[in-house]
Amino acid sequence: MFFASDNTSGLPPRIWEALRRANDGFAPGYGADTLTTRLRTRIREVFEAPKAEIYLVTTGSAANALALATLTPPWGAIYCHKLAHIEVDECGAPEFYTGGAKLVHVDGADGKISPAALTATLGAAGRGNVHNVQPSALSLTNLTECGTRYTVSEITELAAIAHAHGLPVHLDGARFANALVAEGCSPADMSWRAGVDMLVLGGTKNGLMGVEAVVIFDPARAWEFQLRRKRAGHLWSKHRFLAAQMLAWLEGGLWLDLARHANDMAARLEAGLAPHAQMLFARGGNMIFARWPRALHTRMQAAGAQYYLWPDTEHLDGPPEAPVSARLVTSWSTREAQVGEFLALMHQPD
Amino acid sequence: MFFASDNTSGLPPRIWEALRRANDGFAPGYGADTLTTRLRTRIREVFEAPKAEIYLVTTGSAANALALATLTPPWGAIYCHKLAHIEVDECGAPEFYTGGAKLVHVDGADGKISPAALTATLGAAGRGNVHNVQPSALSLTNLTECGTRYTVSEITELAAIAHAHGLPVHLDGARFANALVAEGCSPADMSWRAGVDMLVLGGTKNGLMGVEAVVIFDPARAWEFQLRRKRAGHLWSKHRFLAAQMLAWLEGGLWLDLARHANDMAARLEAGLAPHAQMLFARGGNMIFARWPRALHTRMQAAGAQYYLWPDTEHLDGPPEAPVSARLVTSWSTREAQVGEFLALMHQPD
Amino acid sequence: MFFASDNTSGLPPRIWEALRRANDGFAPGYGADTLTTRLRTRIREVFEAPKAEIYLVTTGSAANALALATLTPPWGAIYCHKLAHIEVDECGAPEFYTGGAKLVHVDGADGKISPAALTATLGAAGRGNVHNVQPSALSLTNLTECGTRYTVSEITELAAIAHAHGLPVHLDGARFANALVAEGCSPADMSWRAGVDMLVLGGTKNGLMGVEAVVIFDPARAWEFQLRRKRAGHLWSKHRFLAAQMLAWLEGGLWLDLARHANDMAARLEAGLAPHAQMLFARGGNMIFARWPRALHTRMQAAGAQYYLWPDTEHLDGPPEAPVSARLVTSWSTREAQVGEFLALMHQPD
Amino acid sequence: MFFASDNTSGLPPRIWEALRRANDGFAPGYGADTLTTRLRTRIREVFEAPKAEIYLVTTGSAANALALATLTPPWGAIYCHKLAHIEVDECGAPEFYTGGAKLVHVDGADGKISPAALTATLGAAGRGNVHNVQPSALSLTNLTECGTRYTVSEITELAAIAHAHGLPVHLDGARFANALVAEGCSPADMSWRAGVDMLVLGGTKNGLMGVEAVVIFDPARAWEFQLRRKRAGHLWSKHRFLAAQMLAWLEGGLWLDLARHANDMAARLEAGLAPHAQMLFARGGNMIFARWPRALHTRMQAAGAQYYLWPDTEHLDGPPEAPVSARLVTSWSTREAQVGEFLALMHQPD
Repeated sequence: MFFASDNTSGLPPRIWEALRRANDGFAPGYGADTLTTRLRTRIREVFEAPKAEIYLVTTGSAANALALATLTPPWGAIYCHKLAHIEVDECGAPEFYTGGAKLVHVDGADGKISPAALTATLGAAGRGNVHNVQPSALSLTNLTECGTRYTVSEITELAAIAHAHGLPVHLDGARFANALVAEGCSPADMSWRAGVDMLVLGGTKNGLMGVEAVVIFDPARAWEFQLRRKRAGHLWSKHRFLAAQMLAWLEGGLWLDLARHANDMAARLEAGLAPHAQMLFARGGNMIFARWPRALHTRMQAAGAQYYLWPDTEHLDGPPEAPVSARLVTSWSTREAQVGEFLALMHQPD
Repeated sequence: MFFASDNTSGLPPRIWEALRRANDGFAPGYGADTLTTRLRTRIREVFEAPKAEIYLVTTGSAANALALATLTPPWGAIYCHKLAHIEVDECGAPEFYTGGAKLVHVDGADGKISPAALTATLGAAGRGNVHNVQPSALSLTNLTECGTRYTVSEITELAAIAHAHGLPVHLDGARFANALVAEGCSPADMSWRAGVDMLVLGGTKNGLMGVEAVVIFDPARAWEFQLRRKRAGHLWSKHRFLAAQMLAWLEGGLWLDLARHANDMAARLEAGLAPHAQMLFARGGNMIFARWPRALHTRMQAAGAQYYLWPDTEHLDGPPEAPVSARLVTSWSTREAQVGEFLALMHQPD
Repeated sequence: MFFASDNTSGLPPRIWEALRRANDGFAPGYGADTLTTRLRTRIREVFEAPKAEIYLVTTGSAANALALATLTPPWGAIYCHKLAHIEVDECGAPEFYTGGAKLVHVDGADGKISPAALTATLGAAGRGNVHNVQPSALSLTNLTECGTRYTVSEITELAAIAHAHGLPVHLDGARFANALVAEGCSPADMSWRAGVDMLVLGGTKNGLMGVEAVVIFDPARAWEFQLRRKRAGHLWSKHRFLAAQMLAWLEGGLWLDLARHANDMAARLEAGLAPHAQMLFARGGNMIFARWPRALHTRMQAAGAQYYLWPDTEHLDGPPEAPVSARLVTSWSTREAQVGEFLALMHQPD
Repeated sequence: MFFASDNTSGLPPRIWEALRRANDGFAPGYGADTLTTRLRTRIREVFEAPKAEIYLVTTGSAANALALATLTPPWGAIYCHKLAHIEVDECGAPEFYTGGAKLVHVDGADGKISPAALTATLGAAGRGNVHNVQPSALSLTNLTECGTRYTVSEITELAAIAHAHGLPVHLDGARFANALVAEGCSPADMSWRAGVDMLVLGGTKNGLMGVEAVVIFDPARAWEFQLRRKRAGHLWSKHRFLAAQMLAWLEGGLWLDLARHANDMAARLEAGLAPHAQMLFARGGNMIFARWPRALHTRMQAAGAQYYLWPDTEHLDGPPEAPVSARLVTSWSTREAQVGEFLALMHQPD
């Protein structure tokens, strides 16, 4: 009953097999190997973006921070939701990588920036006033940290506002695949066609060991990105092992199948919980936020169910009857039996 | 009718005379001169703080940013009001100097952090969680950006909360003298006795050319501060000219007299405006925020009255009858006649 | 004939097997898994350092830069050889991570800092002078970039000089295992007993996929290191895969066997080349630097021999008879046959 | 007998008078005053550079670091002489402001970069190699730290090499006026016509209180410079006081007269010393480096002569008969009588 995070899962067999094959013999380092070349070509095809540049790193925090640093000067304002991963969970990585840019919150329900709030916030920004940080980038996350999903048209609207103010758009796609299969559109539709300028295509939460691709749709800043990556110690020497995984992941749409399975498991879990628990947000993919009494939570944890309370700091203590909010995440490796076990445990009489 | 800022004023005669005297002959550079030594002694006396270390810089932004960088690691969270000068008006100087620390907003009415909000915010901070920035400093401003004033007991209460969480306290005292004379307490009462660990004692807005003293009550970090100051290009070679000004300013309580005059002029202005305008905040010293119709504002500007709308971005346009908010600041050099002229103009029939 | 770098090799079977086993089931992320706990214990045993803290990252540049940033303030001087990897090959990673510290060259033949030069350089440093960067750390590399080796007594002497000046000692051990087996001493002898305060224990160049352990012998700075690692995006979520590799590597002394093999292959290569080429440096482990005519180099490259010229910028062009300097690196996976093939090719008539 | 530095002098009468006049009444802050506007126009005229942008700060370290940060990315290499002020005397300010760029030494006698060394160093730089910092700027100093002077043709030659490699040229002109009058050319000849892209025009060492103008000949980066200046806390609010000084300084060529006097005093000092002391460098302006026995040095210091040994760390102790190297600097305020007194003291029998 592991629902703590999709990063507690391992790698599916086809990824392993690809990794094993990549181990044969010698290969040039730092991305000069043939697998990396093939992967770059493959991502361009999958995204219908022949000019895109693609660079691999091994964590989402690194991918986001490097992307933002390439888009934003040190005196820039990066507009994001107050719950965004870059704001809450990266120990200030964007500030470190950008040389001290400021993350400015934009309001919106359910973890999603609202167009009206974005317009208002940008309108009040002191562009051209030397005393103020300067508007520099919009950062979206899909799926959001609340497990909700921006539709393609919502991304398009927000990106249009950003572009109208001269801001490029970064998309934190740690769960891009989960959003994509739920939305049922093409990778291009949810990225550059909607106005995304730089995408973090997350593999780690969807079956890879630690592989994230930064997809730069406008190659003008590609060389800068490469220098930033190296300078941050994020240029792997044995690069073939990263490329091999992601190639196998894209092959035959495996990445989408893995994400679809995770979403399906979340749907099943949600359906089973719905009669007994309050759902906090409309599910966008493979994450559920639900409320139940602390006493039930205590019993579930004791029985081995693993999940986080959210936000964790609000839950330090409280009466048994008071509700707590639980975050449950499924993955490619979640089995139906695990969902069933969890639901059975939940419905057990105390 | 110059009410735009207290930094539009020049220097009073006694400061000029001191500056002129300081010009005679040669003097060692970088603070090794006798005037600087005397000033350090004098500030220790005025603040009843014999162990304090004192360093001069020439802008408030530099003083604040250097102080915060000395108190905060790059992964630190600095707690401040969302209207604080360090957040709004310094183009990200704290982020630059700290190497990317995060300014976290704490709520409170009238530009003042509320103790309850501070407790709640610190309670929700992820201290000890490696994914989160770490609580590092509390930053207060007195007078606040709304022209309101923290009382000594309010500072004491907030500092106690900060200290209980292990955070040192920075006080942006760009208008410390104005707050001090309004509060009617001693410099020690409003600084280290109330729990302030590092004070920016502002001279520039109260009659000096560009002189701010950073008063470090705990000297353990003094050497680090000196290195940071030099490294930032804020160590003046002809240091005697800074010290001379501040020595004359402290002499015979001149600094308090200058601030008292500024506050008196603000009181007179407020009294004259009160029947005709809505005051937005309780006046704490030498700043007034008042609302009147845009049409009146237009007429006043045309007649040469100088002041800012606040916050300026909300006022880009609007109907003549809609109210705008004006910020009026008096200084040591504001004359009664100027106040009278402003009020007369205001009350003139259209 | 792959002698370009030890990072062009893959992973040996026992590492793969461990990796495969680690893939079973779910595991908590970010180092909270049992493999990571076991690895930390194991490294403490291997280094006879029960209080050491151990943190994993995936590149040597990251490990070095994080270690140095933990040891050095932004205004610090890091003393290193002008050929050090941190100076030459990391695109300024130490400067980025430290917030702008300065790498100061210390002379010495064959890529090794000389004690006399270190003493002289430290003697001329402006410690306590606010206009100068402040001496902060000594950084050594073993094996050096010239393939030479510091003996234990040489490290001890240099570390003693550093400590006498209050500087901690960092050791870039990208090829620590190669140096260790060549020197024939214990891990403790070549690290903390010799005065090393922070060691980068390199796995990547000796059979791992991308695993470097930072071993912090004085745990006082361990929490800071963790925050820096996370903030840099170097905290892996699927941490078990890093720990599993290094555990298997240490198991039964495999790491030493792998390094010994690499060294043996280098010895064999050196012996075969010696009659025909000038050796530039005394071989310390698995690297050889040799000179031969450009015409021969051209023929070798054409025949598929892979190695770098060194330093590469000096070799852009030149007459066929002029000598070039070649850098040859062997690894755990270099086979005798490959060495033989290389030597045979070399000795072939033109 | 104050020959320690030209920054131990005060301000000449005409500067004071201008400063006093500037104190009348109110003036808008942050450079929006009329004096600043006039100064900008005046500098454009003096430099025959109608498109130049001009920004004021109050220290040379700030001016240099802000200029270099505007010219150089964080991963850049700045080429300078190993004795350059930016390398030796600014506590790492360039590294701080640039976000960790690297200062790379270029050889040359007498504190001057040699064209051959520059060509060789740039040729060996790893441009386009992601593992290396990237060539970004050439930084010259005139007068140099050895008191020598680059001729216009020497600057032209070095700048041409830099430009051929795509590097902009920064000139640290802390003693630009001294160099200019010695060289006898126009300000344009020694700056943009010779290939200088960004000039720090130093006023502080030549009669101003703390005023340095950064002259940006290509205005494309002017807005970035302004943001960096503000963010660093170097945008003065009471800006009129800076502009007033420099306006008076340029008026009627006062700046050149002041520098000429300083140079003349140095020439007189040199002439008097020549029979008795070894001169270390060819004098370029107002600095002399001379050697005499430690015993004489001790007697001079005891008699009140103020000057530095150079480099100071080499002189900590030594036998009385061994020579020391003295650095003597004259200024606008050095009087003939002081020179005479110094020479008389020197020639006194022991």
